[in-house]
Amino acid sequence: MEGAPTRVMVAVNESTIKGYPHASISSRGAFDWTLEKIVRSNTSGFKLLFLHVQVPDEDGFDDMDSIYASPEDFKNMKNRDKIRGLHLLEYFVDKCHEIGIECEAWIKKGDPKEVICHEVKRTQPDFLVVGSRGLGPFQRVFVGTVSEFCVKHAECPVITIKRKACETPQDPVDD
Amino acid sequence: MEGAPTRVMVAVNESTIKGYPHASISSRGAFDWTLEKIVRSNTSGFKLLFLHVQVPDEDGFDDMDSIYASPEDFKNMKNRDKIRGLHLLEYFVDKCHEIGIECEAWIKKGDPKEVICHEVKRTQPDFLVVGSRGLGPFQRVFVGTVSEFCVKHAECPVITIKRKACETPQDPVDD
Repeated sequence: MEGAPTRVMVAVNESTIKGYPHASISSRGAFDWTLEKIVRSNTSGFKLLFLHVQVPDEDGFDDMDSIYASPEDFKNMKNRDKIRGLHLLEYFVDKCHEIGIECEAWIKKGDPKEVICHEVKRTQPDFLVVGSRGLGPFQRVFVGTVSEFCVKHAECPVITIKRKACETPQDPVDD
Repeated sequence: MEGAPTRVMVAVNESTIKGYPHASISSRGAFDWTLEKIVRSNTSGFKLLFLHVQVPDEDGFDDMDSIYASPEDFKNMKNRDKIRGLHLLEYFVDKCHEIGIECEAWIKKGDPKEVICHEVKRTQPDFLVVGSRGLGPFQRVFVGTVSEFCVKHAECPVITIKRKACETPQDPVDD
């Protein structure tokens, strides 16, 4: 009776508070909302596409204790970044596996807002779900918001899910 | 197994080309998209809330041939407006009835963007679907866009569905 499943891209990132492999509050919120309000019991009707965009850490500030002495060290660093990203995606893929919903997950590097729109163009999901911290205009100026950019530029419908008030950390820029 | 149905508000308006009782291209598109991509076969999992906002026609330009000679005439005019709006909603309610999905529909008067956000606050749907003509920035300045306002101000997630390219009239301001 039903045709191909509805393909939903969910953009996910790591927690600014807990770091890898933890997903941000807004990513988990967007995922839970999609399951609860859209997928519901119809697990065979949907396929989730998880995209995690890693921002290249060119100056290596996260890595003060590491020593880079050879090209091999840099390769190891890149591998370690990739593994961190995979652990983040594992959280979402495991949950999908538990409830029996088809999914795919992948990592890209670059500017999240640009990469998400590029991946929408490439993979053509039916719609895109992005979590948002729900920042006010003042905070937005400094943080930039991926969700606003995607609503304007992505070539598919976009639904932005704000965090629940009860899940917002003391500093709303945290996630 | 499933709890209360997901309540989806769908804002609908009349066609600028064909007038009442015809629904606009973007309203029909948003409705069809919601059924095809979200509801799918899970008709018992969703309830659709159709809101039609009528813009008060204070100067009566639509009514050049009518004569208003008594308070009764104005009452009749208001009744006729209401009946036109009900015929528009009938299209959506009939379709829901055919496919067996629960729905409600109602009419309000006022500025569509303000009223939609007010009704979201009042009825607290899980999300709002709005159709959009997909106008460029130049056209938007003159027409204003309800969808952009709702994305910013509605107290629930909002998904904007643009018309398909093949359904866009010669003048994109038409709908």
